[in-house]
Amino acid sequence: MKIEKTTKFLIVGLGLIGGSYARALKKREYPVSAIEPRQAAIDYAMDKGIIDKGYTDVDENAVGQADIIIFALYPKVFVEWIDKYQHLIRPGALITDVTGVKRSVVYEIQSKLRDDVEFIAAHPMAGREVYGVENSDDSIFRDANYIVVPTDKNTAEAIETCKDLGWTLGFEHVSVLSPEMHDEMIGFVSQLTHCIAVSLMTCSDNTHLADYTGDSFRDLTRIARINDEMWSELFMLNKDALLRQMDTFIKEFESLRDLLEKGDVDGMREKMRISTTRRAMFDKRP
Amino acid sequence: MKIEKTTKFLIVGLGLIGGSYARALKKREYPVSAIEPRQAAIDYAMDKGIIDKGYTDVDENAVGQADIIIFALYPKVFVEWIDKYQHLIRPGALITDVTGVKRSVVYEIQSKLRDDVEFIAAHPMAGREVYGVENSDDSIFRDANYIVVPTDKNTAEAIETCKDLGWTLGFEHVSVLSPEMHDEMIGFVSQLTHCIAVSLMTCSDNTHLADYTGDSFRDLTRIARINDEMWSELFMLNKDALLRQMDTFIKEFESLRDLLEKGDVDGMREKMRISTTRRAMFDKRP
Repeated sequence: MKIEKTTKFLIVGLGLIGGSYARALKKREYPVSAIEPRQAAIDYAMDKGIIDKGYTDVDENAVGQADIIIFALYPKVFVEWIDKYQHLIRPGALITDVTGVKRSVVYEIQSKLRDDVEFIAAHPMAGREVYGVENSDDSIFRDANYIVVPTDKNTAEAIETCKDLGWTLGFEHVSVLSPEMHDEMIGFVSQLTHCIAVSLMTCSDNTHLADYTGDSFRDLTRIARINDEMWSELFMLNKDALLRQMDTFIKEFESLRDLLEKGDVDGMREKMRISTTRRAMFDKRP
Repeated sequence: MKIEKTTKFLIVGLGLIGGSYARALKKREYPVSAIEPRQAAIDYAMDKGIIDKGYTDVDENAVGQADIIIFALYPKVFVEWIDKYQHLIRPGALITDVTGVKRSVVYEIQSKLRDDVEFIAAHPMAGREVYGVENSDDSIFRDANYIVVPTDKNTAEAIETCKDLGWTLGFEHVSVLSPEMHDEMIGFVSQLTHCIAVSLMTCSDNTHLADYTGDSFRDLTRIARINDEMWSELFMLNKDALLRQMDTFIKEFESLRDLLEKGDVDGMREKMRISTTRRAMFDKRP
C-alpha cells in the first residue's frame, strides 16, 4: 500500500500522541477519523478540525473502511483491542502503533493477527509532560526521530509505507531497527534517563532548593514529571534490558564516586574528557 | 559602598563569566576595566566595547583605582592572586567573586585579606558549555539565580551592595545563603547532576545511539560537555558534601532498581508520583 491523498487513516486512542498524529495528517489533508472513549476528546478534536469523524465506541464502519490504522494506546490495551476487534479490520489494511517498547508487543500482535492484515511497528520518539488531545501538538515531531521496527514477518512494502508515514508526520529522522535493538536503545536513552530523573527527585526532599536551581537541574529533571501508569508498564515490559542499563550505570557512577573519594583528580578528568568528546557527537546536526 | 554611576569596576579574569559581567555592566554604562593575561581576549573585549580598558598584567593603577573588583578566576588562582597582589587594592574597596564552591574559598580569603578591604562572596548560577569572552553573553543571567554568600565577618552594607550587583547584572533571583548551605545545595543541584551526566556518557560507548536520541536524553546530558580542569577542582573543594549527595542518590536509584527487579509496580508508581509532585515545584514561576 502506498500513502495517497485518498488513504483513509483511523487513529485508535486520541491522547497526546494520537492527537498530534491527527493534527499532522489533517494538515496534509488526509481523511482522518478517530476512536476514543472520552467524548470531550472527540468534541475537542472535531471543533479544532483535527479529525473528520470521531467515535466513542469501536464503530464497525470506521474500522472496516480504514486503510491505515494507528494504535496510540498503552501496550496491554493494544493487545486486548486486537483480541476483541481484529475481525472488523478490512483485508489488506495496514496497522501500526506508537508503543514505546517493542519485543513484548510486536511478536504477540503479529502472532495473533489475521494473515490478511499486516502489522508494522513504529515508535515516534516524541512527547510532552502533559496529556490529552487538548495538549497535542505536531511540532513535537519536528526535531524528533521516528523508528520503524519490523520483524521477519513484515513485507518490504509495509516497511516503506511506514517510513513514508514517518516523513509525512514531519519527523526529522526516520530509521529502521529490529525489536531487540530498539528495546536495548530505548532502555538506555529513554528509560534509564527517566529512572535517573525520578531518583534525583525522590532521593531527598529537595523542594526547598527550588529557588536556587539553575537550568542544568531543570533540564535534567524535566522528565521527572512522569505518567506513572504508562511508564511503570513500559519499564516492566522491558525489564531485562532496563536492569542491564541500570546496573551498568550504577557501576560507572560508583567508579566516579570512588575516584573523588580517593582524590584521584587525573582519573576524574579522564572520565570528563571522554564524556565531553562523546557528548559532542550527540549534538543535533545543523 | 553603594553602586553609583561612577563606581569603577575591575574584572580579573575575562573568560565566559567575566566577559558576561563586563557586558552587563557596560550596557548599564558603568566604567569597566579588566585584567586578563590573554591579549586576544582583551582585544576582543575592547573591539566590542565591553570594557573601557584592558591589561594583560596586574596593573597597579587599574587595581588601585577600582571601587569594586570582581574575581572571575578558578578558586586556587583566586587565592594565589590575593596572596600576591592584595597590597595594590585601595582601602575601602569591595571585592567579590564568582566561584562555584564557597566554604573552601571564603574563609581562606577573608582570613588573609587586609582589614581595610572587604570580601563578599557571590555565586552567579549561570553558564554555558563554551568558554572565553568570545562566547560571553549576559542574557544567561536573565533566568538565573545570583547567590550572595556572606559570613559573620561581612557588613550589612556589603551584603546589600552585593545583592544590588546581582540585580544590576540582570539576574532573575537574588538570594542569600551561608557558605555551608550554599555548598550543600550546590552539591545537589549542580555537582551531583554533572556527575550523573558524565557517568551516563562514560558507562558505555553509546555514540552509535546518537541517531536515535530524543530531546530528553539531550537535555539530560547537555552538561556532560564539561570543563575537566574546572569541575575536578570544584568537586575536590566540595568533596564531603558531594560524596554525601552521591551516596544518597545511589541508595535511592538502587531501591528503584530493586522494585523493578521484584516487579513491584505499585512501589515504582509511588516513587513516580512523588517525583512528579516534587518536580512541579521546580518549574519556573511565570
